[in-house]
Amino acid sequence: MTASRLLAGIGDVGRDRGRGGYSRHAFDPVEGELRTWFAEQAGRRGLDVETDRNGNLWAWWGAPGPDAVVTGSHLDSVPGGGAFDGPLGVVSALSAVEALRDKGFQPGKPLAVVVFAEEEGGRFGVPCLGSRLLTGSLDADRARALRDPDGVTLAEAAKRAGHDPERFGADQEALARIGKFVELHVEQGRGLIDLGSPVAVGSTVIEHGRWRFSFTGQGNHAGATLLGDRRDPMVPAAAAVAAARWVAAGVDDARATVGRLVPTPGGTNVIASTVDLWLDARVPGGDTRGLVDEIAGAARRAAEEEGCALTVTEESYSDTVRFDPALRDELDAVLGGVPALPTGAGHDAAILAGQVPAGMLYVRNPTGISHAPEEFAEESDVDEGARALSDVLARLAG
Amino acid sequence: MTASRLLAGIGDVGRDRGRGGYSRHAFDPVEGELRTWFAEQAGRRGLDVETDRNGNLWAWWGAPGPDAVVTGSHLDSVPGGGAFDGPLGVVSALSAVEALRDKGFQPGKPLAVVVFAEEEGGRFGVPCLGSRLLTGSLDADRARALRDPDGVTLAEAAKRAGHDPERFGADQEALARIGKFVELHVEQGRGLIDLGSPVAVGSTVIEHGRWRFSFTGQGNHAGATLLGDRRDPMVPAAAAVAAARWVAAGVDDARATVGRLVPTPGGTNVIASTVDLWLDARVPGGDTRGLVDEIAGAARRAAEEEGCALTVTEESYSDTVRFDPALRDELDAVLGGVPALPTGAGHDAAILAGQVPAGMLYVRNPTGISHAPEEFAEESDVDEGARALSDVLARLAG
Repeated sequence: MTASRLLAGIGDVGRDRGRGGYSRHAFDPVEGELRTWFAEQAGRRGLDVETDRNGNLWAWWGAPGPDAVVTGSHLDSVPGGGAFDGPLGVVSALSAVEALRDKGFQPGKPLAVVVFAEEEGGRFGVPCLGSRLLTGSLDADRARALRDPDGVTLAEAAKRAGHDPERFGADQEALARIGKFVELHVEQGRGLIDLGSPVAVGSTVIEHGRWRFSFTGQGNHAGATLLGDRRDPMVPAAAAVAAARWVAAGVDDARATVGRLVPTPGGTNVIASTVDLWLDARVPGGDTRGLVDEIAGAARRAAEEEGCALTVTEESYSDTVRFDPALRDELDAVLGGVPALPTGAGHDAAILAGQVPAGMLYVRNPTGISHAPEEFAEESDVDEGARALSDVLARLAG
Repeated sequence: MTASRLLAGIGDVGRDRGRGGYSRHAFDPVEGELRTWFAEQAGRRGLDVETDRNGNLWAWWGAPGPDAVVTGSHLDSVPGGGAFDGPLGVVSALSAVEALRDKGFQPGKPLAVVVFAEEEGGRFGVPCLGSRLLTGSLDADRARALRDPDGVTLAEAAKRAGHDPERFGADQEALARIGKFVELHVEQGRGLIDLGSPVAVGSTVIEHGRWRFSFTGQGNHAGATLLGDRRDPMVPAAAAVAAARWVAAGVDDARATVGRLVPTPGGTNVIASTVDLWLDARVPGGDTRGLVDEIAGAARRAAEEEGCALTVTEESYSDTVRFDPALRDELDAVLGGVPALPTGAGHDAAILAGQVPAGMLYVRNPTGISHAPEEFAEESDVDEGARALSDVLARLAG
């Protein structure tokens, strides 16, 4: 079955009628449905499915073992996300395996398709949760205590979904089986639009992270409280949003975004008592923490002026990743001179890259839009991507 | 039973563990529990309870009839509100009626205690919903179509709570029964703190309203989208928050507040596609709509600069209210020279004031904070307020 047909098969799962697009989050019923779908599709292709200690799914062609060639991506989404970010890499992997089987290919090494849990951090805030836990780059105690917007801990949610959160944590055994990892993903910016190629090889992932800014003031009545008597945390929160833009504008290619902002209690006729906002910041080859410090400095001055307090917490941080040069050379050799592309988006492949040779393939996105319903890839490009992945797997596992 | 003991009786109903304080909203189960409590307490005091066409509760001493003396307030709250805003007027009314009965008082006119529905607009956005519907100042079709943050219409919520939304609308019959209306309420600012009196008489309610600002941009990936390629509605939304403050600061005693702001989809690594914020604006004796126009102008310029669209919708508006001078004279005569207080807070009494003689009593709030858990009144002041209301009712209905 083509990758595009496989993808169409989950087109109705997790649609978000309010926001548009899809909302598929770790350990929720929608994600459970996608896990079941994946296990069934893998079974049809003769793969053996297992769930590792951190809730990641593995589908094996051949006995799990060392030096395995692993491909895959994730099935969760941002709130109101597109259809391709994550699932494209999973359906392409399944389709590539099927194509290899149909050709009578006999892998010389174990081959696996993996689905990582909570790659977007859409529910618990930390992106690449499954791969970070697996590699030990996220402490299991910290992970278990993460809370979703309704206050449910990751431990509780995982338990309800049938996982054992006590087993979360660095999994050397699972990691030691990976010989090489290749993730196929939809391109998320305008990088491939003008290059005349449906596929690119990943070169780097830029440094990035997430910071929570919590402003505390004094909740009060919006009509009865004179401006001079206010300590309104929304005022410095707005200053932080403005600072994120002007500070980033002063640094080459830097990105700083506030896409989530929550005033509490959130009433129209109520001065908020607290405002939390999340800053996503990324600086290519630069100093992301320095950028955040400068934004935080401006926010802190605005908070002090309003009589508010500010605490800034680093919720995740990922250093610049350069994908394995030897593996890139192999990908180039198979694909014959496709473009090399840096990206501003984080990926599980970039987390794994610290421990095993890892690489990426990108599929062209003609809208240049991602994390939104307008994210897109042409059917012919989707199927071209799956063919490229099939060729890569044949080479790496041959 | 004293008003403070009555109030303590509902101290556990509708506590908001997340925000602190109380969240009690129109037609939700918590509000249903408070309605049942009110009916029972009224019954114990020999009052006959009825629900009018708009979901307001009436408890009658004597046959409902014209020229009635009516008192009361509301039981709903803002999200995370205090214990006194609304319930204080209801428990004081019940306690005042009980005190009059105990004294053997025989009312010469019908006397009623009323509980208005959704005074805060905490669920459906329009404040004083019950009194606006009753007086016809809010169109019933518009009211029925109002939605709560989960998308439930007022009509659906009312139906689920056992009301008939088809009967909503101006209720001349109910209105014609009111001879005079007096609402007792906790003071919501610092107005009574330094005046040496536990009780004041209301003079005016300043002009106020609510405006929804909807910014539309292009949702996208926070990491892969260069600043120059963005149309991020959070940027002009932050400019609107800043403008609300600086525009209001230039107008004597003006208040402008953004306490509710909702980015969609609301992901950390997602540039929002839309941001909605609600502006609460109030200008004493001034031009509130002019203030909002100036803020909207600044917001519109910021939106254009970012390639975003902005629509501004007036969700509610209330002109300046001066309470009935003859009724104020009567209140003064009973209470003997207590302070007269203007307020920046809206009230059902101010809605009724357009149609019937209406007045207000305020009870001292030593924190000067309202719409927040820190809202407070001393027990002795609460009981003093109820005694004052009892004296007022004896005079008006004697």
